[in-house]
Amino acid sequence: MRKYAIIGVGHVGATVAYTLVCKGIADELVLIDTNAGKARAEQLDLQDAQARLDSRTIIKINDYDELRDTDILFITSGNIHALDHASGNRWAEFEYTKQIVQDIAPKVKATGFNGIVIDTMNPCDAITHYFQRATGLSRQQVFGTGTFLDTARMQKVVAEVFNCDPKNVSGYVYGEHGESQFSAWSTVQVNGIPITKLVDQYHLDLNALEAQARHGGWAVHSGKGYTSYAIATCAVKLSEAVLADARLACPVSAYSEQFGTYVGQPAIIGKHGVEQVTHLALTKDEQAKFLNSANTIIEKFHAFDDVLASQATPKQQQA
Amino acid sequence: MRKYAIIGVGHVGATVAYTLVCKGIADELVLIDTNAGKARAEQLDLQDAQARLDSRTIIKINDYDELRDTDILFITSGNIHALDHASGNRWAEFEYTKQIVQDIAPKVKATGFNGIVIDTMNPCDAITHYFQRATGLSRQQVFGTGTFLDTARMQKVVAEVFNCDPKNVSGYVYGEHGESQFSAWSTVQVNGIPITKLVDQYHLDLNALEAQARHGGWAVHSGKGYTSYAIATCAVKLSEAVLADARLACPVSAYSEQFGTYVGQPAIIGKHGVEQVTHLALTKDEQAKFLNSANTIIEKFHAFDDVLASQATPKQQQA
Amino acid sequence: MRKYAIIGVGHVGATVAYTLVCKGIADELVLIDTNAGKARAEQLDLQDAQARLDSRTIIKINDYDELRDTDILFITSGNIHALDHASGNRWAEFEYTKQIVQDIAPKVKATGFNGIVIDTMNPCDAITHYFQRATGLSRQQVFGTGTFLDTARMQKVVAEVFNCDPKNVSGYVYGEHGESQFSAWSTVQVNGIPITKLVDQYHLDLNALEAQARHGGWAVHSGKGYTSYAIATCAVKLSEAVLADARLACPVSAYSEQFGTYVGQPAIIGKHGVEQVTHLALTKDEQAKFLNSANTIIEKFHAFDDVLASQATPKQQQA
Amino acid sequence: MRKYAIIGVGHVGATVAYTLVCKGIADELVLIDTNAGKARAEQLDLQDAQARLDSRTIIKINDYDELRDTDILFITSGNIHALDHASGNRWAEFEYTKQIVQDIAPKVKATGFNGIVIDTMNPCDAITHYFQRATGLSRQQVFGTGTFLDTARMQKVVAEVFNCDPKNVSGYVYGEHGESQFSAWSTVQVNGIPITKLVDQYHLDLNALEAQARHGGWAVHSGKGYTSYAIATCAVKLSEAVLADARLACPVSAYSEQFGTYVGQPAIIGKHGVEQVTHLALTKDEQAKFLNSANTIIEKFHAFDDVLASQATPKQQQA
Repeated sequence: MRKYAIIGVGHVGATVAYTLVCKGIADELVLIDTNAGKARAEQLDLQDAQARLDSRTIIKINDYDELRDTDILFITSGNIHALDHASGNRWAEFEYTKQIVQDIAPKVKATGFNGIVIDTMNPCDAITHYFQRATGLSRQQVFGTGTFLDTARMQKVVAEVFNCDPKNVSGYVYGEHGESQFSAWSTVQVNGIPITKLVDQYHLDLNALEAQARHGGWAVHSGKGYTSYAIATCAVKLSEAVLADARLACPVSAYSEQFGTYVGQPAIIGKHGVEQVTHLALTKDEQAKFLNSANTIIEKFHAFDDVLASQATPKQQQA
Repeated sequence: MRKYAIIGVGHVGATVAYTLVCKGIADELVLIDTNAGKARAEQLDLQDAQARLDSRTIIKINDYDELRDTDILFITSGNIHALDHASGNRWAEFEYTKQIVQDIAPKVKATGFNGIVIDTMNPCDAITHYFQRATGLSRQQVFGTGTFLDTARMQKVVAEVFNCDPKNVSGYVYGEHGESQFSAWSTVQVNGIPITKLVDQYHLDLNALEAQARHGGWAVHSGKGYTSYAIATCAVKLSEAVLADARLACPVSAYSEQFGTYVGQPAIIGKHGVEQVTHLALTKDEQAKFLNSANTIIEKFHAFDDVLASQATPKQQQA
Repeated sequence: MRKYAIIGVGHVGATVAYTLVCKGIADELVLIDTNAGKARAEQLDLQDAQARLDSRTIIKINDYDELRDTDILFITSGNIHALDHASGNRWAEFEYTKQIVQDIAPKVKATGFNGIVIDTMNPCDAITHYFQRATGLSRQQVFGTGTFLDTARMQKVVAEVFNCDPKNVSGYVYGEHGESQFSAWSTVQVNGIPITKLVDQYHLDLNALEAQARHGGWAVHSGKGYTSYAIATCAVKLSEAVLADARLACPVSAYSEQFGTYVGQPAIIGKHGVEQVTHLALTKDEQAKFLNSANTIIEKFHAFDDVLASQATPKQQQA
Repeated sequence: MRKYAIIGVGHVGATVAYTLVCKGIADELVLIDTNAGKARAEQLDLQDAQARLDSRTIIKINDYDELRDTDILFITSGNIHALDHASGNRWAEFEYTKQIVQDIAPKVKATGFNGIVIDTMNPCDAITHYFQRATGLSRQQVFGTGTFLDTARMQKVVAEVFNCDPKNVSGYVYGEHGESQFSAWSTVQVNGIPITKLVDQYHLDLNALEAQARHGGWAVHSGKGYTSYAIATCAVKLSEAVLADARLACPVSAYSEQFGTYVGQPAIIGKHGVEQVTHLALTKDEQAKFLNSANTIIEKFHAFDDVLASQATPKQQQA
């Protein structure tokens, strides 16, 4: 039996719920939201769909006790309106989402929940870290979608240049799920060919492609006011890798021993969550960008939370 | 190759699009919306998901020419805000949705589109009729989701009483996708037993169950401001029946020769759209309710559109 | 996590395994067969497919200890060659399959397995009964596919007459998964219309349709030497109803308190297996056929196994 | 509407059919086999499953005229018994499969079929070539599964060493779908790391891994007498890439202008079939192996068919 829970049924949480139900992935699903009417409405809408679906999902709402034997918990709360008035930066949500975590973490902890947590809240890396500490769950079993989505966007923009399936593009976006992220081009291949070898022939502007991937979320946001489908698809895919113990290679926001913070990097996802972090041979320039991005996360985190961040101080680049 | 188009990518249209993409149903998908930024944002969000999906869907936007060889066209426009200020009646949207049809019907016609149209716009029966006439497409190839969703809700509320899968409940809601609809209890079975034989044993209040099904949409609407998942699931399921020429029995808004209007009733859905309407032996009381509901549609339609409605006048109940 | 096991990876067991893997239903799958080479070959063939599937299933072989935490156990052994030389009767397999049960039941019991058992072995009703007794598992948690497949065949042959989707045909085949089964026409509806009311208009020969459904398996068998796809589809669907606690209405081989034997009849399938048996108002004639079919199972069972069958003696029809 | 046809419903063809039906991929499916009883039995078995599947597929048999508007044609005939008595070499089937092609090619041609052909028959490269010439269909629209399956096996055996998902292993097996194939290790990455850099650390024996991948089919064959699930999964995945115009990167048996023969190599699969062949920077050693494998195909092809092969003579390695 596959049991899922979602805390925060806004655009992302609700889309995750719908995906789990319409694809028959979840056997049981718990929706939790401080807006009880919203949770109830999503429950009803999904239940209304059941007679038209071949699968069945039992859907419950607003009962933290259900977390006790939950396999996968998505935390997907947010305040998109905070973001609306901000300067196009996911950190603008931190003040709101930190309070959400302060509210939900003790409740999650109190249930004895011992499954895997997948975080889509923003700023993703900081909130994942914050939630992990606040609950005392292991760093393995708490991770964020991080640059899994940014990598999908990088794959898409590169695929458009080469007129091919985004799945033909391998490689990773590293760092913050935010402005300081970067496409590690040394890891990227198109149809099996290193993209760095295609730059001249195809007159590629890698910086422009990287920017396009980085700002993909804002492009969606500016047109519909939020993002939902791609992020939900990413979150669900990660959960499937966990339940099947797939040991699938995915860039996620995982804890970095090197940097002392959660940060987007390639990892192996299996039944324990982050089974291991994969260390690729980045170029010097990429290593510097990675350090810089990790430090950006730590610094901002620090600015928001002195106590928690005190043990996580920016690092110097290793020789 | 399965080619779909959606006109109106609001909550329903976008959810239909996501369902087609995330389940790998559509090979090609065209999104059309007067809000070009919204169409573009949904296209981007769905494309961003592609690297994480096993299937692939080519997604295009705002090009009516693409309708020429489209198999299935969903019309899903609406103005949920009109509904917000109204008295809980789907007719409040008619003034808005009529104008939308006046805008889109000639454009659809001009493309030479000759596929199947599935309408989710409200008031569903009237708009389906209106669109069918305005485009000159056959009554077979244009139909509405009608009471397919209301029937799913009836199945759900009955299933809750009997603690079983909604799919164990057969039977139909007839009439308007609106207030004058009714559950034809003589057609309803629970686990193979006529519900009318279970009334005493289970102390069933069929009127209360009917009301619960009828108002299911408002329960969702009051909590999330719109409905999306169940209606999208219904619409997609109908489209699959068309493409597979399944000849699946579904209650939809189909043209009734008897009443001279589109109205929710059981039909067989196949490659031509509505392959046939199924005439069940309703009780006298149900026949009267069906006539009443059909007349309600015609009268309201008439009040809004003298010319078009002139040929569709309320009927007397046949002996 | 959804954990499945299959004992007997012949045509049916292997097809069940493939279905679970190719649709991403199982997270973990254990294949057990006395032919170790066959189990290994199926494991390899399914593992070879994994790089081409979006989902992942961990596949293990020939380890009974894995049953301890298995959710669903399919028993699908058989000796199709025994059947080949026989007179077209599933009882011909009983001598073989009984020995298989005598071999596997103690092994299953020894593991502490406490999940749900779905039996496709023939003669289905007798073997299900035999396995349930031999393991001491409850009658709820052990059931057979029984007439779930025969009902699907009845739906198909009726649907062909009416040129519609088999899913438009409701109702049940009762009794033995064998020659004494019968279509309970009083329970059958086509597009919501009782089939008994359509006999004259469509010149239906219900006996011929019943025979066609009953002999559907032999039609397949004569052309390919076994049956696999439909039976595997039925078995998998039942397992999904269990894992989701769907409480789905399905005719299965469930224990009948009335008759003292397992026999095909409508039941509600949920997390405990057979949640309840559904008693429909059969006609006098159908009741007699049902009694006769149950007695047939008991008598034959008795002929094969005096001890076990001694407590299960043929009943007189109740007044 | 997605219309598929399969010529040859043996183990592979039948499994392809089942996959298309059970996953709801095909709207219409045509099964053709010289053994009319086998085709009929598979049709019946698949139709018997329809009442238990959410999707519907119309299944027809043994009518070549249906190919006229078929999108995808699988040719999957074979004579596994020829293989049984042979020396473990897929060429042993050529005498049989050539005759099959001589029978079916003119029939396919006569229908005016203009879709895409996916060949799984063995020896795959030679038969694909032979069928393409015999039908006069373009080299784009006829291709074989070739090393798509061998690559999946290489991914699997490498993944086992690294205890990860086979999908984490990228790269390609080139050459003949047979003994002269080779794993182009310079193209292979594990979790984003070139496998050549992992040899020392993990004490990899690449030759042993290559042999294990190459002989994966025989391992399955020796245990079950044929292979079916992985090859069918590969074939279906290719067909989905075609119908969606995915432009997915897959190693297939595609025509090589360089070598003048069909041979396994990376290609881009889209609506025209093979959209393009991808030329990776193989090592000198790999280039030699590729030439050798292509020549092996040509030589054997020549030995079997002087006329057809006369224009395809072995090439010298280019400087």
